[in-house]
Amino acid sequence: MTVDYQPMWQELGLDLQAHDGLLQGLGAAYQDIFLSRKNRPRGMAYLDFVMSEVHGLRIKELLDAKKAGRKVIGAFCVFVPEEIVLAADAILVGLCTGADFAMEEVEKILPRNTCSLIKSAFGFKLSKVCPFLEAADMVVGENTCDGKKKSYEQLRELIPNLYVMDLPQQKTEDGRHLLLQEYRRFLRAIEKLSGVEITVDRLRRGIELTNNKRRVLQRLSRLRTANPVPISGLDALLINQVSFYDDPQRFTESINKLCDELEERIQQKIGVFPADTPKILLSGCPMAVPNWKIPSLIERSGAVVVGEESCVGERGWRNLTAAAGNTVDELLEAIVERYFQVDCAVFTPNSDRERHVAEMCREYQADGVIHYSLQFCQPYIIESMPMERRLNDQGGNFLRIETDYSMEDVGQLQTRIEAFIEIIS
Amino acid sequence: MTVDYQPMWQELGLDLQAHDGLLQGLGAAYQDIFLSRKNRPRGMAYLDFVMSEVHGLRIKELLDAKKAGRKVIGAFCVFVPEEIVLAADAILVGLCTGADFAMEEVEKILPRNTCSLIKSAFGFKLSKVCPFLEAADMVVGENTCDGKKKSYEQLRELIPNLYVMDLPQQKTEDGRHLLLQEYRRFLRAIEKLSGVEITVDRLRRGIELTNNKRRVLQRLSRLRTANPVPISGLDALLINQVSFYDDPQRFTESINKLCDELEERIQQKIGVFPADTPKILLSGCPMAVPNWKIPSLIERSGAVVVGEESCVGERGWRNLTAAAGNTVDELLEAIVERYFQVDCAVFTPNSDRERHVAEMCREYQADGVIHYSLQFCQPYIIESMPMERRLNDQGGNFLRIETDYSMEDVGQLQTRIEAFIEIIS
Repeated sequence: MTVDYQPMWQELGLDLQAHDGLLQGLGAAYQDIFLSRKNRPRGMAYLDFVMSEVHGLRIKELLDAKKAGRKVIGAFCVFVPEEIVLAADAILVGLCTGADFAMEEVEKILPRNTCSLIKSAFGFKLSKVCPFLEAADMVVGENTCDGKKKSYEQLRELIPNLYVMDLPQQKTEDGRHLLLQEYRRFLRAIEKLSGVEITVDRLRRGIELTNNKRRVLQRLSRLRTANPVPISGLDALLINQVSFYDDPQRFTESINKLCDELEERIQQKIGVFPADTPKILLSGCPMAVPNWKIPSLIERSGAVVVGEESCVGERGWRNLTAAAGNTVDELLEAIVERYFQVDCAVFTPNSDRERHVAEMCREYQADGVIHYSLQFCQPYIIESMPMERRLNDQGGNFLRIETDYSMEDVGQLQTRIEAFIEIIS
Repeated sequence: MTVDYQPMWQELGLDLQAHDGLLQGLGAAYQDIFLSRKNRPRGMAYLDFVMSEVHGLRIKELLDAKKAGRKVIGAFCVFVPEEIVLAADAILVGLCTGADFAMEEVEKILPRNTCSLIKSAFGFKLSKVCPFLEAADMVVGENTCDGKKKSYEQLRELIPNLYVMDLPQQKTEDGRHLLLQEYRRFLRAIEKLSGVEITVDRLRRGIELTNNKRRVLQRLSRLRTANPVPISGLDALLINQVSFYDDPQRFTESINKLCDELEERIQQKIGVFPADTPKILLSGCPMAVPNWKIPSLIERSGAVVVGEESCVGERGWRNLTAAAGNTVDELLEAIVERYFQVDCAVFTPNSDRERHVAEMCREYQADGVIHYSLQFCQPYIIESMPMERRLNDQGGNFLRIETDYSMEDVGQLQTRIEAFIEIIS
């Protein structure tokens, strides 16, 4: 069954030719990086389907929901509280930021020395190839880093419905106050946009749906500690990536089923790689679809990625929101409490993160950490340097990679990654 | 009279050999860039003296003050309120960040892609050549950008008495609340350090002294609108730079005298450059001693710098603090009100800045704007791009320069600056 989505994309204002090019590239990369691999769990078929329809059926669902009166909120960051969005019966989707597009045009607006993720957001908008972006009733930016904070001032000219959320930089009482105020403001904005009054029950339901998604991702991560590892790091990353796009309830159910299968695999000692394959913990910047460069290189070089210390990974779902509270404001405080624990590099100091990396190394029995930063991402790059020193002091293995979305450095990266894996094997 | 400061520097823990090298380099640059120039105002002799004694007599004064029980506070940023420091009879000094030092060591701690100013702060500390830093009882950092915010986490290991001030990112009520809380916290920290209770009268006096310094810099800037220009941009920049080091009262008196002389010059139509020399407004990142690279290139290429839209310039003293209030907290709110007007790129949006640049162009009758950013300073570089577009749209002339503290790009910069001056002449 092939559905013709061209009219839908046209209606959304996409550049059909450029978009076709994107889909073809994405399809080829997906075939090469995912579908061609042996021994994947059967449950990945669900993810393969979702990915094959990521700009098709999922967009149709969003547009159908919009026709039924629901609102679509696009976001770039895990600080945007899905609890609040779901409470208003709205839909939160992560926006496309994982590939280079229209770089020449982007670099007329932003400095060359801007990270790929930010440039990508502009590139997708300028070249009109992101149906999520075009379908969104509100796009939420957040002040997590200088690059985003200052570039949103330009993005607003391209995306009039851009809403910017401020974020604290310190985990102090004043910082917490700021985040609470921002989440209150966001709640009111979502209420206004959706026309839905967010009641206690609605917000509890939003918290429950969001927590359930986090729980299944936590369950998945625990299964990755088995030896042999029952699922590749690439497939696990894909699941994390899809968690930003898919319907949360359906996603939770599907991944729970996949986890059942992984448990069977573990019992039968079936792995995607041989037992005792060197285990890598990936740490650092988020990887949005289709940014599979580094894990793909790692898993082609004889190691397996067992965890992602990243927003598209454990940072995104480590903490649950307590549904404790009898008023909307009390629940909001619980939500703030939860997000205030996120160990994003926006915070100074951010010592929790180093502790989490060490914990994850132990839990996943990682043989080494590969720290991945996008070039010019000062917060994560600067944090990686003392992290490397201290991990090395403790006898750990640490490889620091700075890269972008281009493929120019793949040969060089492969050499470095292979050498690192040889050391830790 | 030559005083031997070696014992003093030794006692401060300076690396005498490296420090001698620094002073020699500084002396040679000063001779070349300042002393060799013709037709400077007589009043610049005061600045020449201050500069010749910047690591000598001024440090002795600080140490004498410390012996008398006063405290020395070092700072990197104009958001550190001198009003509060002076109210406690303490002394605020700007810290050395204008030259490369120990880069190899610095780049073991910080990424290469960090701006020169931040690297410089680390370099001066690591190579033990900044007597201001070593004399400081407290060093104040502030969360103005990702580079500073995250690198202070490392600097704390080198400077145990580092105090970090958080800053708001938005000019909202919540942002104002955060700044007020931070200034309250700073006031208490200064009280504790100095043992001085900051009373209303003391704080009024601090405001007055600080305002007086700002007023004389405002007076100086107005005199630079004359044609021919009575003082070079380099000398004016030097005055701005020295305003961060010198005793505020003595500085104010000396610069007022210099301004008297400039008024005479204007009456007699005496300029440092011929009448109708092309006028440049410098805009962007601060220039700390001895960072004279760009204005030196401009003024050797047949133009004169008439204003600095910079923290070491108009952004630093444009706004006065109202001494309005009958309690310390009311005065603190007036101080917050004043600093909240600063058009630093930490704020988003920061539209005041573009308006100020346009205003300054008109007031100083600038023929062109040269926007100076340190490489990797994302806030100012990103802001410069829409600024360039809009200024160009209005028929203005705009040259965007990204550079660092090295001299490697001087030839290339000279070519670009000469070409720009030719266009606007």
